[in-house]
Amino acid sequence: MKKIMVVGLGPGDKEHMTVQAVEALKEAELICGYSVYIDMAKAVVPDTPTFMTPMTKEIDRCRAALDAASKGTTVAMVCSGDAGVYGMAGLIIELADEFPPVEIEVVSGVTAALSGASVLGAPLVHDFCTISLSDLLTPWEKIEKRLDAAASADFCIAIYNPMSKKRHDYLQKACDIMMRYKSPDTVCGVVRNIGREGEQKWIGTLQQLRDYEGDMFCTAFVGNEQTTVKNGLMVTPRGYQGKSEWNER
Amino acid sequence: MKKIMVVGLGPGDKEHMTVQAVEALKEAELICGYSVYIDMAKAVVPDTPTFMTPMTKEIDRCRAALDAASKGTTVAMVCSGDAGVYGMAGLIIELADEFPPVEIEVVSGVTAALSGASVLGAPLVHDFCTISLSDLLTPWEKIEKRLDAAASADFCIAIYNPMSKKRHDYLQKACDIMMRYKSPDTVCGVVRNIGREGEQKWIGTLQQLRDYEGDMFCTAFVGNEQTTVKNGLMVTPRGYQGKSEWNER
Repeated sequence: MKKIMVVGLGPGDKEHMTVQAVEALKEAELICGYSVYIDMAKAVVPDTPTFMTPMTKEIDRCRAALDAASKGTTVAMVCSGDAGVYGMAGLIIELADEFPPVEIEVVSGVTAALSGASVLGAPLVHDFCTISLSDLLTPWEKIEKRLDAAASADFCIAIYNPMSKKRHDYLQKACDIMMRYKSPDTVCGVVRNIGREGEQKWIGTLQQLRDYEGDMFCTAFVGNEQTTVKNGLMVTPRGYQGKSEWNER
Repeated sequence: MKKIMVVGLGPGDKEHMTVQAVEALKEAELICGYSVYIDMAKAVVPDTPTFMTPMTKEIDRCRAALDAASKGTTVAMVCSGDAGVYGMAGLIIELADEFPPVEIEVVSGVTAALSGASVLGAPLVHDFCTISLSDLLTPWEKIEKRLDAAASADFCIAIYNPMSKKRHDYLQKACDIMMRYKSPDTVCGVVRNIGREGEQKWIGTLQQLRDYEGDMFCTAFVGNEQTTVKNGLMVTPRGYQGKSEWNER
């Protein structure tokens, strides 16, 4: 059966890829993706042919990948993080019926919420949301509504695409919305270049996060009302009854 | 430096572990965890000594692990899925100061939201929440509030611990809450035994999910208003402007 694999590579280096992702790269005869992700894959399989398109040409990229797969080439479409979370798996499935049938295999990976959390400590131990602040494909009103709802119900929140050159004030707006419900002292964190060279982390308060100067390589984390800092690490308890009851359920 | 690693093993088999998790297991001199997770680790390192405690003895388990690490044994505390998401990383960090200093390394892994999503297709391509229906450590009112908020803002939702013998009607209650905002026709899915022998998947509607008969090995997925079924797979679009605009940003 002709096959396309949509492969989540995790945050960057091979160490954070799953065994299945490494195997998928080795199996692939053609690797498709955005140039940065192609470079991540090439660290594992330097000699496999590649096809890249710029960041905003996702549909062209997916169609090229599906076209090659439907003609008999085993293709890996690579994404950073997970294949599904803000990744290409959905678009591949949506576009697949334009081509002769191919098997679609989704290979999950460690998304930035998880890999970033492990750098900060354990900020997402309880219920959490991921929210992207990119309004390229989503109306800002929808993003605002999600920030409001997530904050009102005391979710931990992992914020993807918190800032970019064009969107320098979005994180400020997002923090202002969350502070409708969350204390300005809520413990927050930022990780930059997760799992890559130059990895940096920062831990502070929601009020400080509002004015944090980062870039598109950052993922931000907002705690819930129980999140604390312990030995320099950001920690959210598993439950609300206190650790002494863990052994008494 | 003395070291304890909190290792997320992913859904089950070695294929879904990260390269880093496999290396951590190989490095460990003692593996601590709940018996099911110990078995997952033993498939990789059958000869490493282990220490297990029953499911409800998490504090004892963490203290034993920290005690061993502080005395010089390199310890891996293993969790299914991610080390942080409903995992042990938080408790290890919280309890660490009862013992002489040890380095704590959190090794992230593929949590059930991601691995289950890859089985169903791509249900979590846009903003999503994880919500656990277990009220052992969290008041049910808090869980209800989160279900309500997440549904009101049209999040995709991954539901952990959707049912157990003692909580046969919780998923019904949860679906009723989500149907305050979400259509009964919202596309939903369930994956059982993700990444393990006997893996099963089901795709249906929110109304049908309400009466789904599952068990504690299930993870449930609720789509957003744009989630569809395509070629038997559950798919959530990346954005709200339609795929034709992907190339025109």
